[in-house]
Amino acid sequence: MLETIDPDIKLDEDEYRRIHEKLDLRLTVLQQEIRKAGIPVIIIFEGWEASGKGTAIGRLLQPLDPRGYRVQLVKLPSAEERLRPPMRRFWLTLPANGMIHIYDRSWYHQILEDRVEKLVPKKQWQGAYERLQVFERQLADDGAVILKFWLHITKSEQAKRFKALAKDPAFAWKVGKEDKRQHRRYKKYYEAAEDMLTRTSTAHAPWTVAPSHDKHWAQVKIGETVVSALEAALARKPDKLPAPKRVARRASPFDKVDLNQKLARKDYDRLLPELQDDLRRLEHLIYVARIPVMLLYEGWDAAGKGGNIRRLTRQLDPRGYEVVSISAPTGEEKTHHYLWRFWRNVPKAGHITIFDRSWYGRLLVERVEGFATPVEWQRAYQEINEFETELASFGTVIGKFWIHISRAEQLRRFRQREELPYKRWKITEEDWRNRKKWNDYYYAASDMIEKTSTGHAPWTIIEGNDKLHARVKTLKVTIAAIERALRKKNDD
Amino acid sequence: MLETIDPDIKLDEDEYRRIHEKLDLRLTVLQQEIRKAGIPVIIIFEGWEASGKGTAIGRLLQPLDPRGYRVQLVKLPSAEERLRPPMRRFWLTLPANGMIHIYDRSWYHQILEDRVEKLVPKKQWQGAYERLQVFERQLADDGAVILKFWLHITKSEQAKRFKALAKDPAFAWKVGKEDKRQHRRYKKYYEAAEDMLTRTSTAHAPWTVAPSHDKHWAQVKIGETVVSALEAALARKPDKLPAPKRVARRASPFDKVDLNQKLARKDYDRLLPELQDDLRRLEHLIYVARIPVMLLYEGWDAAGKGGNIRRLTRQLDPRGYEVVSISAPTGEEKTHHYLWRFWRNVPKAGHITIFDRSWYGRLLVERVEGFATPVEWQRAYQEINEFETELASFGTVIGKFWIHISRAEQLRRFRQREELPYKRWKITEEDWRNRKKWNDYYYAASDMIEKTSTGHAPWTIIEGNDKLHARVKTLKVTIAAIERALRKKNDD
Repeated sequence: MLETIDPDIKLDEDEYRRIHEKLDLRLTVLQQEIRKAGIPVIIIFEGWEASGKGTAIGRLLQPLDPRGYRVQLVKLPSAEERLRPPMRRFWLTLPANGMIHIYDRSWYHQILEDRVEKLVPKKQWQGAYERLQVFERQLADDGAVILKFWLHITKSEQAKRFKALAKDPAFAWKVGKEDKRQHRRYKKYYEAAEDMLTRTSTAHAPWTVAPSHDKHWAQVKIGETVVSALEAALARKPDKLPAPKRVARRASPFDKVDLNQKLARKDYDRLLPELQDDLRRLEHLIYVARIPVMLLYEGWDAAGKGGNIRRLTRQLDPRGYEVVSISAPTGEEKTHHYLWRFWRNVPKAGHITIFDRSWYGRLLVERVEGFATPVEWQRAYQEINEFETELASFGTVIGKFWIHISRAEQLRRFRQREELPYKRWKITEEDWRNRKKWNDYYYAASDMIEKTSTGHAPWTIIEGNDKLHARVKTLKVTIAAIERALRKKNDD
Repeated sequence: MLETIDPDIKLDEDEYRRIHEKLDLRLTVLQQEIRKAGIPVIIIFEGWEASGKGTAIGRLLQPLDPRGYRVQLVKLPSAEERLRPPMRRFWLTLPANGMIHIYDRSWYHQILEDRVEKLVPKKQWQGAYERLQVFERQLADDGAVILKFWLHITKSEQAKRFKALAKDPAFAWKVGKEDKRQHRRYKKYYEAAEDMLTRTSTAHAPWTVAPSHDKHWAQVKIGETVVSALEAALARKPDKLPAPKRVARRASPFDKVDLNQKLARKDYDRLLPELQDDLRRLEHLIYVARIPVMLLYEGWDAAGKGGNIRRLTRQLDPRGYEVVSISAPTGEEKTHHYLWRFWRNVPKAGHITIFDRSWYGRLLVERVEGFATPVEWQRAYQEINEFETELASFGTVIGKFWIHISRAEQLRRFRQREELPYKRWKITEEDWRNRKKWNDYYYAASDMIEKTSTGHAPWTIIEGNDKLHARVKTLKVTIAAIERALRKKNDD
């Protein structure tokens, strides 16, 4: 991509003004339309040191309403950020629907550096590029426009610019040690950049090389690329996919669940405190070993999720764990990708995060109630597996619990809740409405468990008709998973 | 406060259970009521190492619904946090209305350490305590419940606990170097803590010492204190204060503004690029000098704020500044103290943040439209001055611009906007409604400028009938303020 760039190409002042005035006017209007249409826009600027990223970004912003954009500076991860899976910090910078985020450097920056400076093995940076493509595909599928610019200058042009900067005390600091190193190793960076651009330029997130010797030329190319991408996005029609046909009778992972399992009260009274103490010790050991743990609870209304979580956490140090309760998204959550709010809350190294309901809402309530389209929820199996793979590859222990009860048991519990004054707040009209859709949820949950139970993120179905059995089993499964991770860490 | 604590006090298991069961039940109900009433609750745990903060917090949480609380761990500020005024990181941890935030360590922790270890001079830690009292008073005025617990144990008890922890590999890491140092210097910490508790225990944010030799005793004292504080908060009636009477005719800072000031186009064409270049150089110099700059724009609808900001920023490097446009609060912003969202966006060291409308909305639209009660907006003069003092004492350069136009000029611009298709989106029904309240806004703005123009955060009224004059003047004032700050920094 880079060798085709002609460094002598130029655009004179008058022609530039004439073209850019039109582009500016068009951008002003497009920004309003993008906002109305709720399309998030991601524009990345990468390129050589002193290639003029600041100027280019500034020029692009000029016609825009500042309420509709934000400039994101991407630096190396902080100590705090290093305690979380690496993609998290990028997820948190993403634009809400209708917003334009302009990135000065991006998720590509560090990998390029690490690669050229040989800080990571080949397998690692290649893997990173694959993950970035997953990331960008997920965003594009959700309707985001993604544009990536590489500002290109030759080695001699870079030398000239460094010299000019050094002359003025206000700007001299801009040329640092790392910039000089990049200049010395220009050829290595060039080859790595070329390879990166080729590997990661996709239809939904293409790279555009802006020849930046002449800033007018670069600016017009950037402006035109942005305008045409926004126009294309506004013209795009949403994908349609029919909902899969319902099969009258089929196998379900729930078919073989034995809901008659029971635990005697006296065994419970003996086992529970022992297991709680074990988990407390493990909580401290994973802290030292810097292992993150992610547990999630799904299941029928009144299955006993809350009480189960309370027993699981009873002896834990509250500084080492957090319970995140998930209900319908609100505010910022609603105007971002559905995984965004979960990325916000992924556990950090050494901590336990317990989700009371989770991203699986996409495959349960959102599917059944039609809040997600068939395209969206059918895509979600892959997206969720990818999400959990990201967490697992960071070393996260993942436990997913489906607390299962029979329909009759649910009815019994609903009635009991209505009778007890201090439990009455727990039961709402919505619970009764959901109950009527038992079969829909049954099949949605069956599909979900089949398609998202993986080696590093397995589902465990907890027989929940007997709460004592359920609590002890959840604790045991959790403890076993953490102990496995600790042994593995010690073996490494 | 500490010398009255009896280390031999005890509560036997049975009595403890009996009392605490009642407290738990009461807390469950109170949590629901607090949530319904939208009261934010702040509960701080400070105290000796190994005094049992984790256990105490865990026990307090047991009866609570996890959707309604959050545990906040306070550590030393990160490198990134050090680039912002010190109170910002605490503001960002505050509970939304109806939420309970439990703090493991708090804004008191670092000051106590710094003081005992003599890392800061006396004047500094005393000043810090005063600022914390301002902070807590602002929150309490806004309806927050603030409770502060000091978990107290004697030196010999601490020694015993350290020894017990050291025996188990899962817990041995908990006793670190700093803990041992605290133990050696127990007496110094004791005196400093005693002084801190006395200085900072106020009616709206009292300290309670929990004698923690016996964890049952401590737990009951904590539980009872929380229950009675929540009950008191629920019983509280909001303060009432009548709106001040309108005076028929009075002096206003706008009286002497000469709106006939003009700048010839040819002078503007010469001056503007010069000043823009100057500001660009200064942007880089403040970056090196780590000076934060905060500019804000208020003024009549159609006064030309947007265009003024665009000219001011035209040549700036977009990585060094940010424009924050303020409209009515939404989502999380609505359920926090009105200053919360501004604390989020205060400029960091070396950067410029420009607010297009600001916290002064409290004294303008919220006052005039009645969104804030008279008690609230009359309190806001002091709150805002305190807020800006916090920024200024961090070294922030503050420039506040009121862009002033005549009522006739506004009418002319409204009509023009309606006629030009690409400007039509800028004019709404609301603008016309606001225009009818010109006099109300006139007096509200007059009061605001009189009461919030301070030495370190002065208002500048910009004559805005002639946009060219307004743009050049704003640039000049900004440049002069930044140059003053740079000179001052160099002199230091």
